[in-house]
Amino acid sequence: MSGARVVQPDALHGIVRKIFTAAGCSGQDASTVADVLVWANLRGVDSHGVVRVPRYVEMFKSGEAKANPAMKTRRLRPAAAVVDADGAPGPVALTAAMTTAIEMARETGIAWVAVRGTVHTGAIGYYAELAARQGMIGLGIVAGIPNMAYHGARGAAVATSPLAIAVPSSRHGTLLLDMATATIALGKIAQHKIKGLPLPEGAALDADGLPTTDPGKAVTPLPMAGAKGSGLSLMFELMTSALIANPIVAPFHAKAPGARKHRQNAGFLAIDVAAFGDSADFKSQVDAAADAIQALPPADAGAKVLLPGERGARTFEQRRVEGIPVPPKTWEALVEAAQAVGVDIGD
Amino acid sequence: MSGARVVQPDALHGIVRKIFTAAGCSGQDASTVADVLVWANLRGVDSHGVVRVPRYVEMFKSGEAKANPAMKTRRLRPAAAVVDADGAPGPVALTAAMTTAIEMARETGIAWVAVRGTVHTGAIGYYAELAARQGMIGLGIVAGIPNMAYHGARGAAVATSPLAIAVPSSRHGTLLLDMATATIALGKIAQHKIKGLPLPEGAALDADGLPTTDPGKAVTPLPMAGAKGSGLSLMFELMTSALIANPIVAPFHAKAPGARKHRQNAGFLAIDVAAFGDSADFKSQVDAAADAIQALPPADAGAKVLLPGERGARTFEQRRVEGIPVPPKTWEALVEAAQAVGVDIGD
Repeated sequence: MSGARVVQPDALHGIVRKIFTAAGCSGQDASTVADVLVWANLRGVDSHGVVRVPRYVEMFKSGEAKANPAMKTRRLRPAAAVVDADGAPGPVALTAAMTTAIEMARETGIAWVAVRGTVHTGAIGYYAELAARQGMIGLGIVAGIPNMAYHGARGAAVATSPLAIAVPSSRHGTLLLDMATATIALGKIAQHKIKGLPLPEGAALDADGLPTTDPGKAVTPLPMAGAKGSGLSLMFELMTSALIANPIVAPFHAKAPGARKHRQNAGFLAIDVAAFGDSADFKSQVDAAADAIQALPPADAGAKVLLPGERGARTFEQRRVEGIPVPPKTWEALVEAAQAVGVDIGD
Repeated sequence: MSGARVVQPDALHGIVRKIFTAAGCSGQDASTVADVLVWANLRGVDSHGVVRVPRYVEMFKSGEAKANPAMKTRRLRPAAAVVDADGAPGPVALTAAMTTAIEMARETGIAWVAVRGTVHTGAIGYYAELAARQGMIGLGIVAGIPNMAYHGARGAAVATSPLAIAVPSSRHGTLLLDMATATIALGKIAQHKIKGLPLPEGAALDADGLPTTDPGKAVTPLPMAGAKGSGLSLMFELMTSALIANPIVAPFHAKAPGARKHRQNAGFLAIDVAAFGDSADFKSQVDAAADAIQALPPADAGAKVLLPGERGARTFEQRRVEGIPVPPKTWEALVEAAQAVGVDIGD
């Protein structure tokens, strides 16, 4: 990345921690936020990395998010719990949710933990991977403010709500699928605009709700695979927001007061594979399937057939050693966000 | 449907029951199979309806399936169970699995039931809807013999494994998403061939693993949304087959003995919404979201924006009253299957 400053992961983690501590977060919460954001940068998902720091700081100031939330985890049934996030940053609320799901699943085999009212979840693959690191299968879904089209309709109707699934193996690390329900990410539309490249057909709508390949006019991504993508997104809203009576989609369209304020709900599932059989056997099964996929004949000669999350894992190893490239604009925004909470991180 | 014989649902149910009873199934199992197949016909999913009867009968004869399986449900943990199907027809094994998941979820809030070694699951939306009828959220996934491409690879690599999610409402019936992970169903490729219509770009590969729009040459559907569809399918294999140490994908590619024999594994999740809040409130939230979606401005003037499963529910109501159109070929195959087990269903 030309002009990018290369920052070592530990140093970047320290900077994020410092900013969030100064913004009023506890040391532990600040560290959790840093874990999640730097993890995204390490995996090459820079759109969900430290570039988000300034927005959190803004939200603490505006009251949209709380640095010191009265977050509460309530166990509702042996395998069901809810985290009332009270405006906690996504990394804090979602780490608590998956950690609780993992603990409960050890006893019950599986567990579901709902999250009510958080902000900016970050890359949700992180939380799914928490389960995989404990030898479990992890799954997460998120609902948010509508920013994607619904199949057959104009304008923003549902969210680009992501789904993440993480599965542990012995020799292939964590297999990690982390996907939005949109054809194209909003960040990618922005990249196409910068590079002056047209969007693929069927990827986005313009402000009038009409299809466009012009990234300068595209405002609303289309759902992946048509009705499937928007159907999944709607189901995620119902499985998260409706489940805990904190709706997002319905009030948004009813133009209810405050309905366009950024907020997110989520749901996390942990499946303890040890409940179903031997954990080492499970990981061997995953290895065998992964080996079979990697050995498939590639569609393009010389290309490599990739496992879910394989590219991110490779970037992770590279950036862990070589450091994380931070573009000048992102760095300047970090410096400003730090200054806003009275912290000097250099220039 | 020109030339189709219209059969009343109860009569069709009776025919299926008669055939399966004569094939050696218990009256209850035969009735369960009829429930699932006729449900698919009622919803207009004819590819998963009574057209499947002859294949079940064949599989009972060949030993691939068992009319009298030693099926066992084992509770492993408070929220985890497994149904050892022992070659039971999908409808029998999967109805048992979802019924168990619902019972367990009443106590634990949610439950996961794995299914080992069944055949021809039918339309899995049926089982997800069983949970919705009890006021719960139901989710099901299935793994099977590879018949779909993996993103970036040639040939059949993973299965068109479906996902179904059912959510109950008060005024909109069950919202039901039932989707394969493929861009196009194998049945749709066959329909395009019959009608002499080209396939959409990017929907299928030919026998050499190359992209084709010729339905006569298309043998392998491509995954929906590229890496997302095949990634989901692989994850479903790991969450079902690997979880219960009954792998399908890895032995298939290793060309292990018997590895191409038809068999399926599955996983079903029930979420008791009553664990998280008031059930009536939940249904009202679902209604409000459904109202908002239906009120969206349609992309094409005069078109209707549809909820997941809305078209199927409408077909259900119509066919429940008007009867189910059974094409001549399907009827002949039913008559033959009946004769093969010594039953006369007329001609």
